[in-house]
Amino acid sequence: MADIRMGIIGFGFMGHEHANMLKEQGIEGITLTAVCDTNPAQLKDAPAGVKTYPDMDTLLADPEITTVIIAIPNRFHAEAVRKACEHGKDIICEKPCAMSVPEFDEMMKEVKAAGVRFTVHQQRRFDPDFRTMKNVYDGGMVGKVYTVQSMLYGINGNMHDWHVFVSEGGGMLYDWGVHLLDQLLYMIKSPVKTVYADVRNVINKEVDDYFKIELYFENGVVAEVELGTYFLEDRPKWFERHWIVGGDSGTAYSDGFDPEGKIAHTTRLLTNVPGKITMSASGPTRSFGPPAPGVLTTEDLPKADTKHRMYFENYVRATDGLEEFLVKPEEVRRVLCLMDAVRESGRTHRTVDFE
Amino acid sequence: MADIRMGIIGFGFMGHEHANMLKEQGIEGITLTAVCDTNPAQLKDAPAGVKTYPDMDTLLADPEITTVIIAIPNRFHAEAVRKACEHGKDIICEKPCAMSVPEFDEMMKEVKAAGVRFTVHQQRRFDPDFRTMKNVYDGGMVGKVYTVQSMLYGINGNMHDWHVFVSEGGGMLYDWGVHLLDQLLYMIKSPVKTVYADVRNVINKEVDDYFKIELYFENGVVAEVELGTYFLEDRPKWFERHWIVGGDSGTAYSDGFDPEGKIAHTTRLLTNVPGKITMSASGPTRSFGPPAPGVLTTEDLPKADTKHRMYFENYVRATDGLEEFLVKPEEVRRVLCLMDAVRESGRTHRTVDFE
Repeated sequence: MADIRMGIIGFGFMGHEHANMLKEQGIEGITLTAVCDTNPAQLKDAPAGVKTYPDMDTLLADPEITTVIIAIPNRFHAEAVRKACEHGKDIICEKPCAMSVPEFDEMMKEVKAAGVRFTVHQQRRFDPDFRTMKNVYDGGMVGKVYTVQSMLYGINGNMHDWHVFVSEGGGMLYDWGVHLLDQLLYMIKSPVKTVYADVRNVINKEVDDYFKIELYFENGVVAEVELGTYFLEDRPKWFERHWIVGGDSGTAYSDGFDPEGKIAHTTRLLTNVPGKITMSASGPTRSFGPPAPGVLTTEDLPKADTKHRMYFENYVRATDGLEEFLVKPEEVRRVLCLMDAVRESGRTHRTVDFE
Repeated sequence: MADIRMGIIGFGFMGHEHANMLKEQGIEGITLTAVCDTNPAQLKDAPAGVKTYPDMDTLLADPEITTVIIAIPNRFHAEAVRKACEHGKDIICEKPCAMSVPEFDEMMKEVKAAGVRFTVHQQRRFDPDFRTMKNVYDGGMVGKVYTVQSMLYGINGNMHDWHVFVSEGGGMLYDWGVHLLDQLLYMIKSPVKTVYADVRNVINKEVDDYFKIELYFENGVVAEVELGTYFLEDRPKWFERHWIVGGDSGTAYSDGFDPEGKIAHTTRLLTNVPGKITMSASGPTRSFGPPAPGVLTTEDLPKADTKHRMYFENYVRATDGLEEFLVKPEEVRRVLCLMDAVRESGRTHRTVDFE
């Protein structure tokens, strides 16, 4: 079995998360060997038995380390990838891997020349809310799908640490957009023909904190992403994830990272309802209004039991040649290109032709 | 005071609604004089004391009638307008007034030549849900607005009567889209720069039964309309109206034609939250997750007490020269142009430049 000795470059929020996963929870085949951070204060709570280094150069010089996780601010990823390549280390890079497509292409040249393994930590492909809705999509549980809507709402506009600075690669499109788009491209296996986006700095001065994105796929699906860090409703589970997958035989919906929802169908499809059945506050309506009892039926969501540790379990099995690495460089590049199209559409308020 | 003697052309669903409004409820200044329908069965429950005619020609020949409401299928509106003009009758036309912009322009030529009054029954400008959110918008109650979202969801894909036929001017864009777009243009006083739309026949073979429309206004607002006749969630008030108005100092939301909702604000805007405050089912998140107690505050919606009868009350006062007619031909034309742009964008999956 693989004997991966991991060094974590950057011991901030995600660095700590990775250490917890690899050391406290443990992944068979991976040993957490060292962590580094240029801020000594961050290293104070490094796990016992794990080496600490003051910077990436000293960590990379440690011959015991076979593989690094790059978990420093986005704008330093390229430098870290280059240096890791120079030391022949395999690389797991945090997302977004690169600040731009040209930067990513340069990274890939270096990775290829060095002959090291390279993948990106798109662990949210294992989010149970996403996988549950992917089960709905893959299983045709709502018939022919026309809309997939992926939403994430926050409470106070806040972004943490360096994410509030453009220069560091901050903003929500980089931070979460890359996950939300990656999930959709992983779910909907079809070329994206056009991209429409509204990208905003609603209450953050420097960085985007709201976006709505519409992706028209060649297979006919329109997928929508909406994220707001300050998009408020006083409802249970509002400040988390939401999904809607609409098809021609039903609608699946869920709230929360631990998805709660249903698949809804109707028993009277395209059946005329009597004349003035519904008197609403805004006059009569026959197409819109509460359903008669028994018309709406629901079934449980096909809940997925996935966890982020599966990302590293895949990494180990892929290292052993038992399966493919989950996150492939060409997929990473496609998401970066898509983020460029989103930014362009956000600037021009016009669709961008994509694939 | 005005002495409007009204004839209703077409005694179907809306014809009956108008008769109920003018006869049962009563509008001072308007007398319901006659109704007509080519289907004798429809006339059986005409109100007592109201003349009945077998077609529009005989109704229009009645000299007692000063004004007609045209409430026949969309494709017959142009013919009815032409004939009403020939008889010198003032005209209230059901929406959508015309099947196309050229058809509308032809109508307006005839109206102008005949010197009759002309307006369109966009009574949903008085819907209390709409007016409540318009109060939020006009009052700056959520600060600088960036998103206005207007939604309407139905249960079983049904459309009634002739609305399922393209030839009659059926489909939800004609039936409800014209209202939902008219409301947004009435609320947001700014040119529409670009239009993006997804228009679908989800379960209806002939006509559109789902659409999502994004309007980018010159003042920076993006307004969205989503309507689905088969867009299901098993939640209270789901199968009705929904609104979200998002700004930089809060979010207003409401459900239902009788709007229930709140304006939500936060007490800790852009304030960092502690490190790993929220452990979600999909790992830790610091920007997204439930708010700490006391962070989210709400205030009541500024509920509007508007009713559809106000449309006719305006008509009477405007006839008396006391105020302007609420719905002006140039506004009607603008919505028809917008619907053309929506259809084009729906076909091409690209934005259409508008104003």
